Amino acid sequence: MAKKPTKIKLSTEPYKGVRDFYPEDMSLEKYIWRVMSQTAESFGYLEYSASILEPTEIYEAKTGEEIVNNQTYTFRDRGDRKVTLRPEMTPTVARMVAGKRRELSFPLRWYSIPNLFRYERPQKGRLREHYQLNVDIFGVDDLRAEIEIIGVAKAIMNNFGVSDDKFEIRVSSRKILDEYLKKNYNLPDKEIAKVQKLLDKRNKIKDYDEEIRKIIPRGFEVSSIKPEGKLLELINSLNAIGINNIKFDQSLVRGFDYYTDIVFEVYDTSGENNRSLFGGGRYDNLSSIFGEEGIPAVGFGMGDVTIRDVLLTYKLSPEYKSPAKLYICVLGEKYLSGAMKLASKLRAEGINTAVDLSLKNVGDQVKYADKNKIPYIICFGEEEQNNEAYKLKKLSSGEETRLGTTGLITALK
Amino acid sequence: MAKKPTKIKLSTEPYKGVRDFYPEDMSLEKYIWRVMSQTAESFGYLEYSASILEPTEIYEAKTGEEIVNNQTYTFRDRGDRKVTLRPEMTPTVARMVAGKRRELSFPLRWYSIPNLFRYERPQKGRLREHYQLNVDIFGVDDLRAEIEIIGVAKAIMNNFGVSDDKFEIRVSSRKILDEYLKKNYNLPDKEIAKVQKLLDKRNKIKDYDEEIRKIIPRGFEVSSIKPEGKLLELINSLNAIGINNIKFDQSLVRGFDYYTDIVFEVYDTSGENNRSLFGGGRYDNLSSIFGEEGIPAVGFGMGDVTIRDVLLTYKLSPEYKSPAKLYICVLGEKYLSGAMKLASKLRAEGINTAVDLSLKNVGDQVKYADKNKIPYIICFGEEEQNNEAYKLKKLSSGEETRLGTTGLITALK
Repeated sequence: MAKKPTKIKLSTEPYKGVRDFYPEDMSLEKYIWRVMSQTAESFGYLEYSASILEPTEIYEAKTGEEIVNNQTYTFRDRGDRKVTLRPEMTPTVARMVAGKRRELSFPLRWYSIPNLFRYERPQKGRLREHYQLNVDIFGVDDLRAEIEIIGVAKAIMNNFGVSDDKFEIRVSSRKILDEYLKKNYNLPDKEIAKVQKLLDKRNKIKDYDEEIRKIIPRGFEVSSIKPEGKLLELINSLNAIGINNIKFDQSLVRGFDYYTDIVFEVYDTSGENNRSLFGGGRYDNLSSIFGEEGIPAVGFGMGDVTIRDVLLTYKLSPEYKSPAKLYICVLGEKYLSGAMKLASKLRAEGINTAVDLSLKNVGDQVKYADKNKIPYIICFGEEEQNNEAYKLKKLSSGEETRLGTTGLITALK
Repeated sequence: MAKKPTKIKLSTEPYKGVRDFYPEDMSLEKYIWRVMSQTAESFGYLEYSASILEPTEIYEAKTGEEIVNNQTYTFRDRGDRKVTLRPEMTPTVARMVAGKRRELSFPLRWYSIPNLFRYERPQKGRLREHYQLNVDIFGVDDLRAEIEIIGVAKAIMNNFGVSDDKFEIRVSSRKILDEYLKKNYNLPDKEIAKVQKLLDKRNKIKDYDEEIRKIIPRGFEVSSIKPEGKLLELINSLNAIGINNIKFDQSLVRGFDYYTDIVFEVYDTSGENNRSLFGGGRYDNLSSIFGEEGIPAVGFGMGDVTIRDVLLTYKLSPEYKSPAKLYICVLGEKYLSGAMKLASKLRAEGINTAVDLSLKNVGDQVKYADKNKIPYIICFGEEEQNNEAYKLKKLSSGEETRLGTTGLITALK
């Protein structure tokens, strides 16, 4: 049916708090994913993935009440199932590992770069949808897992071009905190959980001291807790493999309920204000919500929004490059088939080639190639069609070379 | 807080009709995305992306009533906005192009591999979530765009290892059909649309002939329509650049309302039953729903589920490869730091290296490397620690070579 143009005018904005990735943005995003992916694979991690739609119940157990009740996209499907757009990946990977526990060979080294949804007010560094690298080891009930995972985190920073003097890795232990609070203040589990929540938010809430005194009337200073046992061993082992930008910080607890012992966070120390970039820790019991014995697990999650900001602030993002290496300007309709056939030949040799489809004048075609940052051009007309004789031009220098088909292939390879 | 293991037992199944990608599945999926992406880029197409969450209204205009009302995931967010998990990518890309029309330099060659959601009964080849390559040209009001787009579709099939004798590309024109129906039966637009819908479903509905006779009492045979004008020119131009597996098939109309003229579909002709694999066409007016003048557009969408099935059926999928090239077996806790430092050195040379974290006996460590398809191993103990003397073993052949650190790097590169 030949439709008349409609009269309605819809907004071209994306949905609130999510991003459109136009090609140059997408190119930077792909660079970020590639560095994450290549670093994880350099340690032997395997990529997995899953749908963003999950049964809501997997978050109800351990993600944290505030997040599930107020910050998720949760709805009922047409079959009245309660589903959620995943706000984090850890419950999903715990589900997958628990589901094939008997077939998988542990330890597992797994990674994924899922998109995650949070229903919150969009602000700098906090969007409603973001991508997050998740790196996890399952089945290692020993500090060796923490050592490697922190090593992966450090390697990613380095591979993004951030040198060791520009960031530090803060470590802490929930167990040490728990034991300290039990021993010195005789607090029950429920009160300990409250102290943890307060500590996690202490830089965000004003009445932190007051709130702490409601639980511990004489107050309590985290600085009085010293690193000991496992934590000291972790720091020493990291030093031994050349990771020295480590700092003990017992105020660190992380937001999720499921962490069981050591947690860590990577801080940007290069600016005026230190800022937390990402973090993780040990969570040994999460798989038990799927009826399996707890599988020891250590991992971290690193968001794309924060790292993108770091790359742009410190000018570490790579220059945009066109996927096409050669643009063939076409000097008239009758040369189009010939140009397309030459392009096929070049593509078969691994040379990405775009053919002009506008048939504008040659000056406009060259401008178009230049604007699109395609580095080389040739024009295709009578001479090229009949004699396979080309003039290859490098747009950045204006340099021209006369070549046959074989020469063209060699020059562009 | 030290949590006790919970007593609940949640299902480890994913949400109905969506897939978990365990590492070997993910590896095949990434291969599919890579072939799609590399082929599109070999023609100079730029990748873009957007969120799966879109305002529902962008589908209400032209996607087709049946799809929006019965087959989408649509809900209201906490701010009472009506949002939809995208069932297709074309309205999104039309929104993005319309939104930056003045900044973009046309023609645009764009591609994306989004995930799409449909609320439907899961069945072979039809899941609730799938990935779909979208390839589009914007700004070319000429057959040149169709020629190139069909060329990309063919190149993708070839790059997946499907030779020309195993598939055919069927082409047709909505305009030719419209004009034929107007001229021969004097049908108004509304009735023409009904005939199109019936044709699209003619292999799925039983009373096709009866339904057609309700509109055209004496019935009508699509085979009486012959290719002419533009369509004939398209077929000839494709032949001229070496694309010969083209067939005219006027019964082809495609499901979406927004197509305006030429449509095409790729058919698998290698099995007993021809099956449609994917398709596309010209849609010149879609951007007008965003208040912009219609931007000429031609494109297609190719789903991952169908092509995955083709690859598995015809044994065209590549063998699974581990990302790690080397596994370092560790002969005791005290050698772990040394092994990790060697691994860092190898990774810096681009050699993906996994270090054992289990400290099981060496036989189990080797078995683990083999099960994970890691091709090479070394053991790391006293000799390796003190003298940097390694025995590199290739697991497939059992072949061993004695090497120093430099030799190890050279051998594995």
